[in-house]
Amino acid sequence: PDLCALTTPSLVDRDPVVIAIGTEGTAPVLARGIKTRIEELLSPNLGGLAALAGRLRPSVAARVPRAKRRAFWAWVFNGAPREMWSRGAEAHAARAIKDALTARQAPEDTSDTGSIALVGAGPGARDHLTLRAVQRLQEADVIFYDRLVEEDVLELARRDAERVFVGKHVGAHAWPQERINAVITAAALQGQRVVRLKCGDPGIFGRTAEELSAAREAGIPVEIVPGITAASAAAAAMGAPLTERGVCDTLILATGTGRAEAPLPDCVRHAGPGTATAFYMAVGQAARISEALLAQGCPGDMEIQVAADVSKPSEQLFRAPVCDLEESLRARGVTGCAILSLTWPKAVARVSAAPLPLAATAAE
Amino acid sequence: PDLCALTTPSLVDRDPVVIAIGTEGTAPVLARGIKTRIEELLSPNLGGLAALAGRLRPSVAARVPRAKRRAFWAWVFNGAPREMWSRGAEAHAARAIKDALTARQAPEDTSDTGSIALVGAGPGARDHLTLRAVQRLQEADVIFYDRLVEEDVLELARRDAERVFVGKHVGAHAWPQERINAVITAAALQGQRVVRLKCGDPGIFGRTAEELSAAREAGIPVEIVPGITAASAAAAAMGAPLTERGVCDTLILATGTGRAEAPLPDCVRHAGPGTATAFYMAVGQAARISEALLAQGCPGDMEIQVAADVSKPSEQLFRAPVCDLEESLRARGVTGCAILSLTWPKAVARVSAAPLPLAATAAE
Repeated sequence: PDLCALTTPSLVDRDPVVIAIGTEGTAPVLARGIKTRIEELLSPNLGGLAALAGRLRPSVAARVPRAKRRAFWAWVFNGAPREMWSRGAEAHAARAIKDALTARQAPEDTSDTGSIALVGAGPGARDHLTLRAVQRLQEADVIFYDRLVEEDVLELARRDAERVFVGKHVGAHAWPQERINAVITAAALQGQRVVRLKCGDPGIFGRTAEELSAAREAGIPVEIVPGITAASAAAAAMGAPLTERGVCDTLILATGTGRAEAPLPDCVRHAGPGTATAFYMAVGQAARISEALLAQGCPGDMEIQVAADVSKPSEQLFRAPVCDLEESLRARGVTGCAILSLTWPKAVARVSAAPLPLAATAAE
Repeated sequence: PDLCALTTPSLVDRDPVVIAIGTEGTAPVLARGIKTRIEELLSPNLGGLAALAGRLRPSVAARVPRAKRRAFWAWVFNGAPREMWSRGAEAHAARAIKDALTARQAPEDTSDTGSIALVGAGPGARDHLTLRAVQRLQEADVIFYDRLVEEDVLELARRDAERVFVGKHVGAHAWPQERINAVITAAALQGQRVVRLKCGDPGIFGRTAEELSAAREAGIPVEIVPGITAASAAAAAMGAPLTERGVCDTLILATGTGRAEAPLPDCVRHAGPGTATAFYMAVGQAARISEALLAQGCPGDMEIQVAADVSKPSEQLFRAPVCDLEESLRARGVTGCAILSLTWPKAVARVSAAPLPLAATAAE
């Protein structure tokens, strides 16, 4: 071996698709790791689809007009045929390709149509993104993101995708929602595949309704890609589930923002034995939440779990008693994005028997 | 070109790491797609780390005992050094490797220690898994899964990982929770990296507390990897967010199972103007949920969104009025896993002014 200057690459074999990984002998463990990732990426039967494509190339060249050909092959390899083929429906995939060949274009030739995907990025860390979210980022022509997204999340996008910051710079105002609606629809109407990347899950406290309506009013296809919501990530980071069978089996997700005018955060009224409550964006309301919880009969020494900047480098996790919440947050310097969550076990009764009735809330 | 029989592969170049993708000319669009995915997988400066490893090979061979060497390189390429290198802290990475060389082993050499990861698989579709969940599946020696996980999710695991079904076969009993606790801890105590794959998010209605306690009692390192919870996926599939600023900004997640003895599902009492409620596993309780909602003053024609088997091939999405929920479920043949969700806008007042007080619930 000392005299040998030849190194053989690791191979991923999906004949006729073959991928060779070489490191010039510097890093066999790395090569094996890369091989494993690529093996996972490519379905075991992918070679058959490539072979079929090879056999069909002359017919495609003869029938599908040149301008439609790229979209045709993109559909074969990124669209329904590849998806059917991967899950073993090979005959269906072949049939779909031959039908498209007869029609002289891919059935989903939407190369001229823009679209909007409202994509949940999760709470911060890049590896909390779902495979579907990564896929949408890689397809995007333009990505609108705000300050809550970590920079390395954007690295998952194509290198040539445009990235537009629509959040709040230090010392500046945030973009108004109407302006965000306007830029995302304008980009899609130009035929671009738009990703609006949002912190957490777009469906939970995500201002998603406004962007959905704007897209629909403009006639643009729009899709929501769900993400890990901050309360889930906070609980995972604390190593404690949000619900526990027989202990607390109702989970309340509440937001602490935009309610400065209310005498008491309504959402606190749901807290009681057998519930878990997670307050989003509630650091500024901590004093009033404590006060309201105590008024609901919550024991003052019951602990609130605080998860600040979950899954980001600045993450802080700690517990603070209800009666001392604001002080604890101040002592730890928590000012920004945090989840405050309270697990109130079924077996712990209220210390006061007269919680405020829910019926008195809101516009009733 | 007609006479040419040579095809050149696509290259991903991280010299000395080079990856070549060839398709024998059958599928250039596929080759480009694979190239893009691999480009995303490998940080731009990866070659430098491989080159450093190449230079250090003789020292590692001289100093690190043979039995520790594989773990050493695995740590360099899968652990902290690669992570530091990828984010540009190359000098720190090099320093960490040299320190480990002095110590004659990787600092994180945990090859003998078993572990348990409670991993959220999301609602069904494979692409709802997060990158972290996929990573844990790929590291696992053994995976315990149940009937709620789609088969192609398991394909994300290493080919040689053991897969153990701990769910309910048709016509058979489900595994009791205690037995699941016992098998996952036993496997980890043998030094295996265990993944317990759970539907949705492990922190929400996931029986996670029991498995966590069992692992901790056995002294096994345990981690929760959050997943997309079914309500998020249901809302995304329906194209409607769960919350909407100013319309309903408190979200209640409630479970309908295991409460057959209660005269009324307690969780329904939280529903009211300004709330959204998602009922998990509640198909069998549909009649009682409708009844309870009507008793809470919910207008009978308010619509419940039904999302059955979300993101699975058998997915069904529809809306049914509260007063007709059970009948609609029966008519559509929905019997299994479904999310029933009710958005009660702030502007819609109760039709009766006397909802049941929350204070009367549970063990009070």
